[in-house]
Amino acid sequence: MKKVCVLGAGSTKYGKLSDSIADIATQASVSAIESAKISPKEVDFSYIANVFGIADKQVHLGPVLMSNLGISETPSLSIESACGSGSVAFHEAWAKVAGGHCDCVVATGVEKVTHTGTEWTTTYFAYCSDFYYEGQAGASFPGLFASMARAYISEFDATEEDFAMVAVKNHDNGILNPKAHLQKKITVDDVMNSAVVASPLKLYDCCPFSDGASSVILCSEEFARAHGGNYIEVIGSGRGGSSSALQGREHMTTIPSTKIASKQAYEMAGISPKDVDFAEVHDCFTIAEIVDIEDLGFFEKGAGIKAVREGRTKLNSDISINPSGGLKSKGHPIGATGIGQVVEVYDQLTGAAGARTVKDAKIGLTHNFGATGASCAVNLFASV
Amino acid sequence: MKKVCVLGAGSTKYGKLSDSIADIATQASVSAIESAKISPKEVDFSYIANVFGIADKQVHLGPVLMSNLGISETPSLSIESACGSGSVAFHEAWAKVAGGHCDCVVATGVEKVTHTGTEWTTTYFAYCSDFYYEGQAGASFPGLFASMARAYISEFDATEEDFAMVAVKNHDNGILNPKAHLQKKITVDDVMNSAVVASPLKLYDCCPFSDGASSVILCSEEFARAHGGNYIEVIGSGRGGSSSALQGREHMTTIPSTKIASKQAYEMAGISPKDVDFAEVHDCFTIAEIVDIEDLGFFEKGAGIKAVREGRTKLNSDISINPSGGLKSKGHPIGATGIGQVVEVYDQLTGAAGARTVKDAKIGLTHNFGATGASCAVNLFASV
Repeated sequence: MKKVCVLGAGSTKYGKLSDSIADIATQASVSAIESAKISPKEVDFSYIANVFGIADKQVHLGPVLMSNLGISETPSLSIESACGSGSVAFHEAWAKVAGGHCDCVVATGVEKVTHTGTEWTTTYFAYCSDFYYEGQAGASFPGLFASMARAYISEFDATEEDFAMVAVKNHDNGILNPKAHLQKKITVDDVMNSAVVASPLKLYDCCPFSDGASSVILCSEEFARAHGGNYIEVIGSGRGGSSSALQGREHMTTIPSTKIASKQAYEMAGISPKDVDFAEVHDCFTIAEIVDIEDLGFFEKGAGIKAVREGRTKLNSDISINPSGGLKSKGHPIGATGIGQVVEVYDQLTGAAGARTVKDAKIGLTHNFGATGASCAVNLFASV
Repeated sequence: MKKVCVLGAGSTKYGKLSDSIADIATQASVSAIESAKISPKEVDFSYIANVFGIADKQVHLGPVLMSNLGISETPSLSIESACGSGSVAFHEAWAKVAGGHCDCVVATGVEKVTHTGTEWTTTYFAYCSDFYYEGQAGASFPGLFASMARAYISEFDATEEDFAMVAVKNHDNGILNPKAHLQKKITVDDVMNSAVVASPLKLYDCCPFSDGASSVILCSEEFARAHGGNYIEVIGSGRGGSSSALQGREHMTTIPSTKIASKQAYEMAGISPKDVDFAEVHDCFTIAEIVDIEDLGFFEKGAGIKAVREGRTKLNSDISINPSGGLKSKGHPIGATGIGQVVEVYDQLTGAAGARTVKDAKIGLTHNFGATGASCAVNLFASV
């Protein structure tokens, strides 16, 4: 297995964007290519992470992106794994380089949905659940995560105010991220007073629908060394699955795919959760971040909520969780999210994270899942 | 690079199907797993090829399929590369096993669209073109391939009757395939008298919209040997790209991605086109098959039409092209097509092709592209 590096990274701003899906994918890719100090012609393969290209009338995005980059003969493909598409595509790109098939790959995640309105987006996102058991019964994602939140409250000593603290922390971080969708300071009271979406989750417990694109360049170590860009190393990459419908799970307060994927990644890297300096985790709803930081092994089951309450997951505390602002504040353009997490890790480990820098960070983790965690990928990175 | 084998294969019938997209994907996968004489628990990774899961309200198909197979913790993902999704997914699965990441992978292609009607399907399929330059200008695929047909007629000595002979041959083969969508003998007159879709292409020059699923099991040679199923060997696999819009191509009568992908596959296998006994090629329209058999190196540029006229591509002639009936008669459930081609090769090389058996065949090729060939994969197989 060859060592794989991330040699460059770029993102558009996340939010409501007016350019086409192909254009924003191109903007992020060009920015990653420039950051890597390579020529597009050096790219020998490409992965696009995208779920609802159909919303902007463009599926089969790869060839359009390659043509825009002036490398139309470079092979491409799109990967979909619901909200986890980005990190799943990153894992595939990693495997291609690690397996010796490719030397330099561009992995670009993109989504554009805000122009379609909330009804279209909510309906189509529900097609990412197990539609037979969940979506068609009216159980869209806010309802499903609300069930997890209810279970967590009933099983552990948690309150709605505790969940709200996750949102407050992530907004505090997002304010420091010029590319974040929601750059706005909020308080626990703001969260508690926001409209109920699916009790106990309120509007400010939920991440927004966002447009955006993020892109990274993966390559072999030799390739990275031969070019002038800053690079970091991929030290672990894991994948896991869970029952597609929540009803098939043994527990409501843990996500099996996170445990499986992170175990693989930690073992590959030869490290344990305590070695991780910061993590970008999948906080589509505040409850998700609590479950994530327990399943990833940062805190014991049931102790995540206490850690949040004590501020141990804030920027530059015990472990910085979602320094970018996370899905909650940075935004969640679903195909782009997992790649965007890698962009944040790249920026952190190459000294480009500005005011939200995690001090003395050497190891970063990305965790991103699809639906209620039916698919998951965890990637681990180290500075060089 | 490890040697990769195909240990099992299965398909639903192609046509108008009433079961859900998840159910037909499951049926094909179960059939492939049974054919491989393995237990689902031995599968360590899965690829789903699909374009319009949204048509049946289920994207994020992988976890649903894994849950149906009783292996919900097995990682999965969906791959989209328009009509080439199946063979592109096969290439990715091959790379994963060849690179030593996985030992046994299920690759399942599926599509279900016929229930949505021709207008929905034509519109949404056009989103697979370069929509900015083509689809939004009204250039859907029949029109784009008609442009290629016009160019071919003008450049070489071809007639509409010649194109019709491709359809007649593929229907002759499809009649021998119990799983084919259109099992009906047709004549050149039938083609010539069918409704004009986009001149010079008539209805019988076009493949149908189909539902269907196909699935194959890929594994290492050691895994294949340790199990009881028949297996064949993957001897080459290549990928290529072309300009997403036809207007970006230097020539209208050749598809660059086919040439690039097949060159890679031939070189990997250490063979030349004359070593291939039969090929499943992408005949979405009759003109496409002509262009394919030239780009794949079976005939010189401009000589493909003469070969068809002389019957040299019929079953058990010089080279059997589309013994399954091809997209034209077997059908074209777009996500499934490329995997279905591999199922045909598996059946041919393991003696399970019945009345359509290519005699003494040792080497088979699959060729499948997306859109007008903006993405392409070519895979080569040998009997063991």
